[in-house]
Amino acid sequence: MKHVLLIGIGPGDPRQVTYEAVEAMQRATVFFVLDKGAAKNELVHLRRTILARYLPEGDYRLVQVQDPQRDADAGDYAGAVRAWHAQRAALYARLLEQEMAPGDVGAFLLWGEPGLYDSTLRILDLVRAGGVALALTVIPGISSVQALAARHQIPLNRIGEPLTILPARRLAEVEPVDNVAVMLDGQCAFAALDDPGLHIYWGAYVGSADEVLISGPLQAVKGHIVQVREQLRQRKGWIMDTYLLRREA
Amino acid sequence: MKHVLLIGIGPGDPRQVTYEAVEAMQRATVFFVLDKGAAKNELVHLRRTILARYLPEGDYRLVQVQDPQRDADAGDYAGAVRAWHAQRAALYARLLEQEMAPGDVGAFLLWGEPGLYDSTLRILDLVRAGGVALALTVIPGISSVQALAARHQIPLNRIGEPLTILPARRLAEVEPVDNVAVMLDGQCAFAALDDPGLHIYWGAYVGSADEVLISGPLQAVKGHIVQVREQLRQRKGWIMDTYLLRREA
Repeated sequence: MKHVLLIGIGPGDPRQVTYEAVEAMQRATVFFVLDKGAAKNELVHLRRTILARYLPEGDYRLVQVQDPQRDADAGDYAGAVRAWHAQRAALYARLLEQEMAPGDVGAFLLWGEPGLYDSTLRILDLVRAGGVALALTVIPGISSVQALAARHQIPLNRIGEPLTILPARRLAEVEPVDNVAVMLDGQCAFAALDDPGLHIYWGAYVGSADEVLISGPLQAVKGHIVQVREQLRQRKGWIMDTYLLRREA
Repeated sequence: MKHVLLIGIGPGDPRQVTYEAVEAMQRATVFFVLDKGAAKNELVHLRRTILARYLPEGDYRLVQVQDPQRDADAGDYAGAVRAWHAQRAALYARLLEQEMAPGDVGAFLLWGEPGLYDSTLRILDLVRAGGVALALTVIPGISSVQALAARHQIPLNRIGEPLTILPARRLAEVEPVDNVAVMLDGQCAFAALDDPGLHIYWGAYVGSADEVLISGPLQAVKGHIVQVREQLRQRKGWIMDTYLLRREA
């Protein structure tokens, strides 16, 4: 039986880590760091910063692996994601097999909240379904949506109203848009909305030293956000942003 | 200008507090504790436990006040909540005025996430609109929904799908129910759903020593949950529970 911890470490600010997460880090003997794409180096560095801060004695191993990329051109989105997950499950199974000795406790440090648009739990379920005996522990973390609302000083929901959190590719299906938090928007899906009643609360790199916040009536500020977003992306090589859309009362 | 911190302290487990929240507690000189109803004494006690753990030197004041109750019989829900908020805003304004000397930093310790079904931020906006100059800082916290998903070891969303978080009274409007996290359900609204495809992940007092978790096909386990919930409520005098409903693939 292999013990594996999925530790939510928040959106980037090392102070937005819970005591439970740090206790879990202290139990771990080997950390698996898998990243991909342009943000990879900085995200690996940020994890190392968090480990150095909370485990200064450095009594652990770090296993760093390039995560496979998803086929972004595939027509069938869910199918492409499933194929990609199967590929990653094979990689993770091999890693756990090769890198964990008896008595080892493995850990994944996950950005934000492990339950929200993170696939590690799903992939470890596939690893388990493939016959590897796993004892999992999941530690919640602050999601970027929570950090966004806190920095804008707004509630995520209004009195008695639902909140919907979704990936940008589902935004076009929502009618009417209200109280919607959007993640993973690489294409500025908000810019296509022409509803004059919407307000946007946008943030990039929320909680980090590079944080940028913009809010206002969507039609008045959306062009500005698209511009700023592109400048930031070019300057840093990658961007991590999220936003909330709300109909003003 | 009065400095006031809204500090999310998670769903109850003192370890599910962030380092940022503890740094904020250390800056505060006066804590405002407002609770109501049956859970009041235990919730006040839990906050005192968190303060004793993280501020052992005890160099702060605690101002404890009974929060007004909402008129639960009013027909117009949103109107009744607004009237109740206005009443609370008057109380909070008076408290800030009377209890904060120049140089004081006030703080509210809020269960879960300050942006999710918590009205303190909204009430302080009313206080501000009433002419009290406030400098606010909001510190996100782990919500009970995140703790629920972590304990059940499930993701909150499935691949590419939206997640909806809502109060129970809005559940009947959702069609079809899928990936819905429900808070504030005093009436077991889930028991009225007869959809045979739904799975429920339910938890009470999640993250505390009294935690109870039940999951399974909704139609098979809903009667059991209603029964267990009522037993727990009677034994403790109050209950704090939440659940996620999902259509199984």
